[in-house]
Amino acid sequence: MELLVPFDDKSAPIYEQIYRFIKEEIQQGRILAHTKLPSTRQLSKNLGVSRSTVQLAYDQLTAEGYLEPEACRGYFVAEIDVLLSMDEKESGCREASVLPVEEKAERKIDFSPRGIDLDHFPLHTWRKLSRETLTMANKNLFTSGEPKGELALRQAICRYLQSARGVTCLPEQMIVGAGSEYLLMLLNQILGNHKIAMEDPTYKQAYRVFRRLGHPVVPVPMDKNGMEVEALRSSGAKIAYIMPSHQYPTGIVMPIRRRQELLNWAGEVDGRYIIEDDYDSEFRYRGKPIPALGGFDQKERVIYLGTFSKAVAPAIRVSFLVLPKHLIGRYQENCGFYSSTVSRVDQEILRRFLEEGYFERHLNRMRGIYRNKHDKLIGELEPLEDRFLIQGDMAGLHVLLESKQGRTERELLEAAEAAGVRVYGLSSYFLAPDQRESHTVILGYANLTQEQIEEGIRKLDLAWR
Amino acid sequence: MELLVPFDDKSAPIYEQIYRFIKEEIQQGRILAHTKLPSTRQLSKNLGVSRSTVQLAYDQLTAEGYLEPEACRGYFVAEIDVLLSMDEKESGCREASVLPVEEKAERKIDFSPRGIDLDHFPLHTWRKLSRETLTMANKNLFTSGEPKGELALRQAICRYLQSARGVTCLPEQMIVGAGSEYLLMLLNQILGNHKIAMEDPTYKQAYRVFRRLGHPVVPVPMDKNGMEVEALRSSGAKIAYIMPSHQYPTGIVMPIRRRQELLNWAGEVDGRYIIEDDYDSEFRYRGKPIPALGGFDQKERVIYLGTFSKAVAPAIRVSFLVLPKHLIGRYQENCGFYSSTVSRVDQEILRRFLEEGYFERHLNRMRGIYRNKHDKLIGELEPLEDRFLIQGDMAGLHVLLESKQGRTERELLEAAEAAGVRVYGLSSYFLAPDQRESHTVILGYANLTQEQIEEGIRKLDLAWR
Repeated sequence: MELLVPFDDKSAPIYEQIYRFIKEEIQQGRILAHTKLPSTRQLSKNLGVSRSTVQLAYDQLTAEGYLEPEACRGYFVAEIDVLLSMDEKESGCREASVLPVEEKAERKIDFSPRGIDLDHFPLHTWRKLSRETLTMANKNLFTSGEPKGELALRQAICRYLQSARGVTCLPEQMIVGAGSEYLLMLLNQILGNHKIAMEDPTYKQAYRVFRRLGHPVVPVPMDKNGMEVEALRSSGAKIAYIMPSHQYPTGIVMPIRRRQELLNWAGEVDGRYIIEDDYDSEFRYRGKPIPALGGFDQKERVIYLGTFSKAVAPAIRVSFLVLPKHLIGRYQENCGFYSSTVSRVDQEILRRFLEEGYFERHLNRMRGIYRNKHDKLIGELEPLEDRFLIQGDMAGLHVLLESKQGRTERELLEAAEAAGVRVYGLSSYFLAPDQRESHTVILGYANLTQEQIEEGIRKLDLAWR
Repeated sequence: MELLVPFDDKSAPIYEQIYRFIKEEIQQGRILAHTKLPSTRQLSKNLGVSRSTVQLAYDQLTAEGYLEPEACRGYFVAEIDVLLSMDEKESGCREASVLPVEEKAERKIDFSPRGIDLDHFPLHTWRKLSRETLTMANKNLFTSGEPKGELALRQAICRYLQSARGVTCLPEQMIVGAGSEYLLMLLNQILGNHKIAMEDPTYKQAYRVFRRLGHPVVPVPMDKNGMEVEALRSSGAKIAYIMPSHQYPTGIVMPIRRRQELLNWAGEVDGRYIIEDDYDSEFRYRGKPIPALGGFDQKERVIYLGTFSKAVAPAIRVSFLVLPKHLIGRYQENCGFYSSTVSRVDQEILRRFLEEGYFERHLNRMRGIYRNKHDKLIGELEPLEDRFLIQGDMAGLHVLLESKQGRTERELLEAAEAAGVRVYGLSSYFLAPDQRESHTVILGYANLTQEQIEEGIRKLDLAWR
């Protein structure tokens, strides 16, 4: 078999052109499953490129499941038909740019604020770590482990928190669990049922968990700096659940002063706590990063809640809780007997991902990718600036558009839908939705390509004239 | 390099002798990391065996992490030093038989009833499925999935339950979660807080969860057929938590008649339920298998709780709950918003493990292995039969020894410890331990080799004279 890679894209690296060419040949069915590819030596000779360049392309294709290496035999094309068609069906817009124009309109461009960019999931690394972890020498990983999560993983997360978020804590203070909802269930068993103050609007999922577990929840209004402290003080709440790094959904980054005021509130009365949900603090585009609230918590009033859902992937299902030292005893007594909800194999993969520098590299890469998407979005939004106020664009993976002309959220959503674009209304995030008429929509961009952002905003510009 | 496999063990298959020889050469450092092994063709010629035999040995070594195949280059010895020494340190007794006699005494033989045999964990398969699952074509697995667990996995578990346990259910009735404790937390939110009857003795971990969540728990005595129905009736409990297939820790297999009586109890009053914990039903050695209670539950009173912790491995962290149909609505309303606690990648690996026949093969294999260990144990226990009544040996992975001479549990435990053997007292499983003087010890054997069982019982025989 001869592979005639055209090398017609001068801007792309050679290995990438080889990779893309072969990938398309496989996707289009021009090279069939089980076909043996030329050896790296042979192909490098044919194409007049170095063998390591060909190796790089083959590695990428292997990592993505297009090729399967077999020891002593070479590289074979994998069976991908079924998976591919599933992928196309479910991932929606991804392949839109190669479709004829008339079909394009059928597909919605979805500015979901919950999406993340999965095209850049570090699959190759994850697979390598997974393979290396699943060995008989590690068979202890298949026994049940430490209730709080493995010590080595907690140590790795502590080091990360210290360097990236300014939070100093001991592994003893940390509990690793399968998702934030589960950890809030544990926290409920540690703290008992108290009145919880939440920002309004807020992250509804946490609200549902608190309500379900029997906590009375009191919504506290926000000004431009976040939760209003006087309103919090008069609410009678004992616990405040806040997202100071990048409030969801408003995108407000809480200034230091307000953080200090909230810490003061917590310090005033024994048994008051702040739950700091630091859900997407990794992604920040303007201004100096502010350390997490937990980072300057002298009085041990902050319960820090972190997750790898945004920074790695939602399906990883690893979140963690950092308790003030004086609550460790109560955790031990009330919840110390629960086994960890995260498999030890997954814990070990994540530990190596953190400790061997992969996470940092991945974050740096994703910061670049998200920053580009963010800047693209902000640039494309320019023609809408006379009609909309753009907010929450300092960090995170979504922005807010507030109509300056008093158009209602419902009008904006309907016009967008009609144009084949999905945006999200702010009103559904309010705890008391009846009281407010929203003029604001939310646009998440993590999951979209630059082209989709451009096309989506162009359509919104027209739809909202 | 020449590999001179001696073929000196006539009882072992050829491939296994090759595998063992190479493994030992690597472990002893006689073949160094990064060394290239002879090709399968070459070695098969040298040894005068078929190439597929050599391939089998290489596959096993690869699966266990001793070799690393590289496409077009062959098999290379992996770097294993660090992992190996960790393994030896942590897994304790495993290598005991190669140690000099004086060191042997130092190591305890641990008849833990919680152990499972991990030497036969289907690592090769798990790794293959894991590798095949982690492909870009499956990138949807990295988004958040269905709250109840993926439909395809629930369908696969339903099919298994139907054929192996006689339980007919719809995937809609099933909730997959990260461990039984988490599922009991959900169940608490579905049913609310009611008085729960538990067998006495019972599985303490479930007891702790119920107490922690605020359920009043009432211990109900057992006769030789299981929970006493009249005592249950007069206890005022609304929910009964039972383990009819193989009660933990007594090992009682509940006869059909008692099962029917318990179902009748549940049917007498609206809102009564039986939680059937079917934790190790896969392993059964005598008599005909009895279908799960959920299998003949006409009135929809049984909540079935199953797990893959025993049958696959504790670290898999996948359990499941089957709800009566009329409770689905209440689950949806109260808990439908919780995301699944099991990663979709792990769900997909398990689904394929079930659907592609691996689970059945693994279970058949483990049944054989456990039966051999069971029979070995029962055989070795013969000299003790004049002094002890052996119970609970119909199924599961542990048996009970009750002193016929009225020796106390404490005496027996202390004598065993002094002889370097760890056994477990029955008293710690009672909900009201003060009320009973136990004369019974528990011996789990899943985690021990035939040699360890033999040595352990020989020592107990002497220690308990």
